[in-house]
Amino acid sequence: MSDALRHPFDQAIALQADPADADRFTGRTSPAYWNMVGPFGGITAATLLQAVLQHPQRIGTPLSLTVNYAAAIAAGDFRIQATPVRTNRSTQHWLLQLSQVDAQGEEQVASTATLVTAIRRETWSSTDLARPQVAAAAELEALRPRAKGVAWIEQYEIRPLSGSFPSVWDGAGEHSHSRLWMRDAQPRALDFPALAAMSDIFFPRVWLRRAIPVPAGTVSITTYFHVDAEQLASVGSGYLLGDARGQAFRNGFFDQSAELWSEAGELLATSNQIVYYKE
Amino acid sequence: MSDALRHPFDQAIALQADPADADRFTGRTSPAYWNMVGPFGGITAATLLQAVLQHPQRIGTPLSLTVNYAAAIAAGDFRIQATPVRTNRSTQHWLLQLSQVDAQGEEQVASTATLVTAIRRETWSSTDLARPQVAAAAELEALRPRAKGVAWIEQYEIRPLSGSFPSVWDGAGEHSHSRLWMRDAQPRALDFPALAAMSDIFFPRVWLRRAIPVPAGTVSITTYFHVDAEQLASVGSGYLLGDARGQAFRNGFFDQSAELWSEAGELLATSNQIVYYKE
Repeated sequence: MSDALRHPFDQAIALQADPADADRFTGRTSPAYWNMVGPFGGITAATLLQAVLQHPQRIGTPLSLTVNYAAAIAAGDFRIQATPVRTNRSTQHWLLQLSQVDAQGEEQVASTATLVTAIRRETWSSTDLARPQVAAAAELEALRPRAKGVAWIEQYEIRPLSGSFPSVWDGAGEHSHSRLWMRDAQPRALDFPALAAMSDIFFPRVWLRRAIPVPAGTVSITTYFHVDAEQLASVGSGYLLGDARGQAFRNGFFDQSAELWSEAGELLATSNQIVYYKE
Repeated sequence: MSDALRHPFDQAIALQADPADADRFTGRTSPAYWNMVGPFGGITAATLLQAVLQHPQRIGTPLSLTVNYAAAIAAGDFRIQATPVRTNRSTQHWLLQLSQVDAQGEEQVASTATLVTAIRRETWSSTDLARPQVAAAAELEALRPRAKGVAWIEQYEIRPLSGSFPSVWDGAGEHSHSRLWMRDAQPRALDFPALAAMSDIFFPRVWLRRAIPVPAGTVSITTYFHVDAEQLASVGSGYLLGDARGQAFRNGFFDQSAELWSEAGELLATSNQIVYYKE
């Protein structure tokens, strides 16, 4: 398929396998998912996950993904090393590194990650977290958000329920809790990379909390996946309900706790991140 | 100091640095922190953290720690590799592996971890999470929990507030939420390794939720530290308030979200884990 026909998300996470080393991949940053000083963190998480999904030795589906953003990724080529360090009967543990060659010709690590994949078996199940009672996506206005120099948000359709992006930066914020419906602007069936990316869709909680646009950026994100591939596929290109809040803002870092639900009311993923902020 | 005079926790996390390689350490499992089929997960997290705290190239204090339990650790010696893969002006990114030599003489990875350390600067701060209103530790009965073959829980003094360990396994559980006061049974001033360990103190949420003792074990834990060394030192050997709940229990895995507060009402750490369970 020519690139022009592929979904921008698929183009962004596309990787070439190294024929000489199953653990190595190369990719290239996508202008469509560009953030202010590097790629959208969610697309980096999705790309790292994609390396394992393409890896010939993988067993199971993603269970737990931690991505650490060690440095801004420059526009251009990158390498991913995805190593299965331990394979058990039903779980597999991966170490990942994303690196780029710097101006001095040296390979520098820009992101690290760990991933656990698992073969899931049917067991007793229950969702203890209460599903938010909210208006249906169709009842709300669809936003196609735009911000200068920030391409990635145009890839998503957002329908805010509460805790929307501050319209005035007047320092009068009162809380850090947002709820929104979201989906790809250009329809695409949900898969694990898309879910990993959407887990990072929420703008920095400190902006909402303070109504001041201080510099902020994710340092580390951990997402737990609660569904298998079949359950995920049943979501199709429907909306996800995202719910996110800050917990502790302290001396330069805050944490965010978030959940992603399907329209049918299934808890697909829970995600936490720690975020740097200035001032 | 002779071992007999050292606190059991300090004995358990003690590491020998390799004089030839700053990234390598050796340690030995502690019978005092033994769990059913390996060490208490919290002591493994603390020991991995300790490697970085001893590392001559470390900058800052722990911000975000993810530990993946890839395999049970056998009683005996282990090695830790702690590599600073990226050092920025105020953050540092670490990759860690704990390994053991198996019966065939091969080195096998038992745990992997990533850690971010950070130099924190004073900024605007706020705790958005409401502190639970609970009875003071002194008003509750102190338990010195015991369970056959489980040494580590005797190292802690627990004062349950709610969601206590099931007294009857009758399958009649209704929720997965526990609150408790905790501290070291033998007093010890709180530090980062102790906080990392206590983040894993909660018994499996699925036991409480179902009142059935199914096999369960942590697969991955991520802890965010919200305090610097000075703030942590002010806690001394006081109690911590722990609050933990399960969110999604689905096909063999559930997630737990937890917070650790000081008696003075400061949110010290937020912690999440994904846990395997059977049936």
